[in-house]
Amino acid sequence: MFSPLIDQLINSLRHLPGVGPKSAQRMALHLLERDREGAQNLSEVLAKAVEHVHRCQQCRTLTEQALCNICSNARRNRKELCIVETPADVIAIETSAVFSGYYFVLLGRLSPIDGIGPKEIGMDVLASRFAEGEIEEVIVATNPTIEGEATAHYISERAKAQGIKVSRIAHGIPIGGELEYVDGGTLAHAISRRQEI
Amino acid sequence: MFSPLIDQLINSLRHLPGVGPKSAQRMALHLLERDREGAQNLSEVLAKAVEHVHRCQQCRTLTEQALCNICSNARRNRKELCIVETPADVIAIETSAVFSGYYFVLLGRLSPIDGIGPKEIGMDVLASRFAEGEIEEVIVATNPTIEGEATAHYISERAKAQGIKVSRIAHGIPIGGELEYVDGGTLAHAISRRQEI
Repeated sequence: MFSPLIDQLINSLRHLPGVGPKSAQRMALHLLERDREGAQNLSEVLAKAVEHVHRCQQCRTLTEQALCNICSNARRNRKELCIVETPADVIAIETSAVFSGYYFVLLGRLSPIDGIGPKEIGMDVLASRFAEGEIEEVIVATNPTIEGEATAHYISERAKAQGIKVSRIAHGIPIGGELEYVDGGTLAHAISRRQEI
Repeated sequence: MFSPLIDQLINSLRHLPGVGPKSAQRMALHLLERDREGAQNLSEVLAKAVEHVHRCQQCRTLTEQALCNICSNARRNRKELCIVETPADVIAIETSAVFSGYYFVLLGRLSPIDGIGPKEIGMDVLASRFAEGEIEEVIVATNPTIEGEATAHYISERAKAQGIKVSRIAHGIPIGGELEYVDGGTLAHAISRRQEI
């Protein structure tokens, strides 16, 4: 519909998650009509990020440094390791300011159907950290999906084999949530895992 | 929160319309974790578009060619000129396949408060097209806002001075729309502009 280059830009913008054809068109026209500087800047930062961002050598989160900000902070608690699926999960937990140990990012979860086995989630790196003997507790914070639970089970077996205490983050009704609006699965879980007071 | 380059990418993505901090984070992580090829491609196309896309010499829509696809199509109806605010409006009308003339894109609307006068909306270019004498009807399709109406009025005066017939697209209840869900302003307009049948 537009000239070839603008059509190409609209298609490229559709690589962004949650962006359909209408939003992509709106974004392309906005950048070209009103924010060329922003477009130029986005293009440059994107190229730089694709070139330089890789995985942290220690925790596998995304960073352009050899070690990420958290792994390079020597004042954190070396005895606790929290295992999450994605870099966004690290940020979510950091925002809560309740955990002071280190992280390990799986960058996925076990899913044999999709060809994601222990190697893809960095189990070799993780196993060698378990073997170092510094870690006393592993907190598994994978998502409560079928794959997330399977991954949690797999990791906990490996950690226990090294004599490490393993815990799983609690699932249930969100604080401030109302029972009425909570889905059945969460409610069933919350009732079956009820705790005596 | 993330490493500096990733934070910078998240900030750059916020230049996109409708993208807040959460979506920008999601987009940045998606591109870096799962679609580096798409990110690379987006960066390149964006740089190319910023460099090459400019205004069509004749209708002022966005294009990387001297004349856009529509202006360079000699088989369209030279007697009709449709005036719209944005390139997206051209596409919207083209999709309806009901108009076969040429377009003129204002790239805005008269708004003295924001410093947008006749020159900014390309009135000089438009006036010289009116003076050429080829155009028999001008269809003003600016949006039914205060500025859009003022712009429509201004343009119609200029066209009429050249003896050109001027029409305004109809505003009212959308076809397929239900009265119950139409806003008061539209309904008031639709009743005051009722047509005898």
